[in-house]
Amino acid sequence: MRQVAILGVGQTPVREHWDLPIRQLAVNAGRAAMEDAGVERVDGIFVGNMTSGLLNQQRHLGAVVADFLGQWGVEAVKLEAACGSAGSAMRQGIIAVASGEMDAVLVIGVEKMTEPQGKEITAALTTAADADYEIIHGVTFVGLNALIMRRYMHEYGYQHDDFAPFPINAHANGARNPYALFRKPITQQTYANGRIVADPITLFDASPIGDGAAALLLVPADKAPGAVRVIGSASATDTLAIHDRENPLWLKAAELSANRAYEQARIGPEDVDLFELHDAFSVMAALSLEACGFAARGAGVRLAQNGDILPHGRIPICTMGGLKARGHPVGATGLYQLAEAALQLRGDAGAAQIDGARIAMTQNIGGSGATIVTHILRKP
Amino acid sequence: MRQVAILGVGQTPVREHWDLPIRQLAVNAGRAAMEDAGVERVDGIFVGNMTSGLLNQQRHLGAVVADFLGQWGVEAVKLEAACGSAGSAMRQGIIAVASGEMDAVLVIGVEKMTEPQGKEITAALTTAADADYEIIHGVTFVGLNALIMRRYMHEYGYQHDDFAPFPINAHANGARNPYALFRKPITQQTYANGRIVADPITLFDASPIGDGAAALLLVPADKAPGAVRVIGSASATDTLAIHDRENPLWLKAAELSANRAYEQARIGPEDVDLFELHDAFSVMAALSLEACGFAARGAGVRLAQNGDILPHGRIPICTMGGLKARGHPVGATGLYQLAEAALQLRGDAGAAQIDGARIAMTQNIGGSGATIVTHILRKP
Repeated sequence: MRQVAILGVGQTPVREHWDLPIRQLAVNAGRAAMEDAGVERVDGIFVGNMTSGLLNQQRHLGAVVADFLGQWGVEAVKLEAACGSAGSAMRQGIIAVASGEMDAVLVIGVEKMTEPQGKEITAALTTAADADYEIIHGVTFVGLNALIMRRYMHEYGYQHDDFAPFPINAHANGARNPYALFRKPITQQTYANGRIVADPITLFDASPIGDGAAALLLVPADKAPGAVRVIGSASATDTLAIHDRENPLWLKAAELSANRAYEQARIGPEDVDLFELHDAFSVMAALSLEACGFAARGAGVRLAQNGDILPHGRIPICTMGGLKARGHPVGATGLYQLAEAALQLRGDAGAAQIDGARIAMTQNIGGSGATIVTHILRKP
Repeated sequence: MRQVAILGVGQTPVREHWDLPIRQLAVNAGRAAMEDAGVERVDGIFVGNMTSGLLNQQRHLGAVVADFLGQWGVEAVKLEAACGSAGSAMRQGIIAVASGEMDAVLVIGVEKMTEPQGKEITAALTTAADADYEIIHGVTFVGLNALIMRRYMHEYGYQHDDFAPFPINAHANGARNPYALFRKPITQQTYANGRIVADPITLFDASPIGDGAAALLLVPADKAPGAVRVIGSASATDTLAIHDRENPLWLKAAELSANRAYEQARIGPEDVDLFELHDAFSVMAALSLEACGFAARGAGVRLAQNGDILPHGRIPICTMGGLKARGHPVGATGLYQLAEAALQLRGDAGAAQIDGARIAMTQNIGGSGATIVTHILRKP
């Protein structure tokens, strides 16, 4: 298997892009990645997306994106694993290049969510969870995560206010990223005043939906000696329904995929300089940090309280805003994380730059942890 | 790249499975393929599906199928390319095994369509076509294919009755396949009396939807010397909207993917013993035969009229009923085709067996030819 490098990075700002159809969002990001790489023709396109069939009345995104990118005849397909769709598209893109099957691959994550009515969006998001054993009881996707957060607080003795460092860090970092949806820092007081979405989750614990696309252009590493390298790539699953898990506070698929990726990269969590984790909800940030070995069980929140997750801390997270402030266009998020990690390692992260970053990790979560994809990147 | 073999085959009958949730359909087929192969643990699961988010309120099928198959922790993802979803899942499964990334892969195509109301199903199927440039004008997916059929008749001077040999062959063959939805032969008279769906397409030109799942268990060929081999695998795209094509009667993506597959297999159309093509509509069968080199332009219908597509003809097609009689659970169809081709090469096709079949080709089409996946299999 060949090593894979990231030769091009492209993204659109996360916004309410009412003037851009979903295909154009994907094309804008894909075209930017191709121009960044100086590549005009690719061998394959892997598109990550979750909800376009329902929210945009358009499936078959592989073909439509290939078509409007002018990549006539190219192999193209869409991958879906709920909010883990883009990380999954990256996995297949990597395998296609690593295997020798393709020499230049475009991976694009895209989602356009803000046009339909709120109830349609809520219904679309519930399809990430178990329709027959969870959603049928009337719980929403936010509701499921609220149950996890409540249990976490009960089990480990935290108050709601203790989670504030996660969104405070995310919003502070998002303010330095021109592609972020929210660019305004928040305070402990803002957090405390957040209105409840699904108790105990408030507005500042829940990442916002958005429209956007992010893309990477992948090539064999030996063709691009100066480009960021992929040194770890792994995906794992857990039960879809949370009640089927031995411990609803442990992300087994995060542990599994992170350990596989560490092994491939021959590193441990102590070697990671920044971690773009999946802070769809504050509690998921804590659970990711714990499952990946950055904090003991129940100590993820304490890690944040100690300032270790800040840009100058031990393990900076959400360095360009995370899901909370950059925004969470669900099927695009995994590639926003990877694009940001690649820019950090290139030294192209602008005001959000983490000094001396050499190794970056990303983790994209589908559902409440049922699909988890972990990647590790290294500065060339 | 390693050669890939098909060690296990599983399928459910295509029916109105009102008693089985979509996950159970997938599990039944997947489990059957694993038992057929004698394999209890796989390294990856690739699920092809088109409409579950809309029709079953369940996305994230990779994780749910892994979960209910008892494949704890395994990597799993869903692929979608409209009706070409299952062929696309096969492509990724093959690359995963051929690359050495995985040693045992389960590919499953699944669709459950018959429970919702007809108008919901029609709406779900339109998402295979171009939402912004085709569907917005009010045309349905059948309507688009009716335009193609009308043009074909005009251009090449055929009457509607001339297409009868396609469904007559499909229904005769389906009668010999216990997994087929329709098991009753039809006559030229039945065809002539078919009521119009979208002029000139009648009931007997259009394949029926259905519920079902088909699965294959893939391993490296050197681990299974007696198993059917994959000797060609290619996928290509064309414009999504038919009006953007140079010639709406030429399936460029079929030509491209078939030629790549022929090259890999080092064969030509004259070496193919049976062809499981994508007869979603009678005219698509003709177009596939032409684009893949079995008939000259406009001569696909004549090939059928000459009897060349019959079980004892020059190039038997739809040997176990095709989409027309076996049924077309859209995102599962590509794997039904592959399962049937593999059974034929093993000599396990029962009453539908094609004598002396050594090389089989399958072709799965997404939309009206925007994604086309071609596979070539060889008897060991």
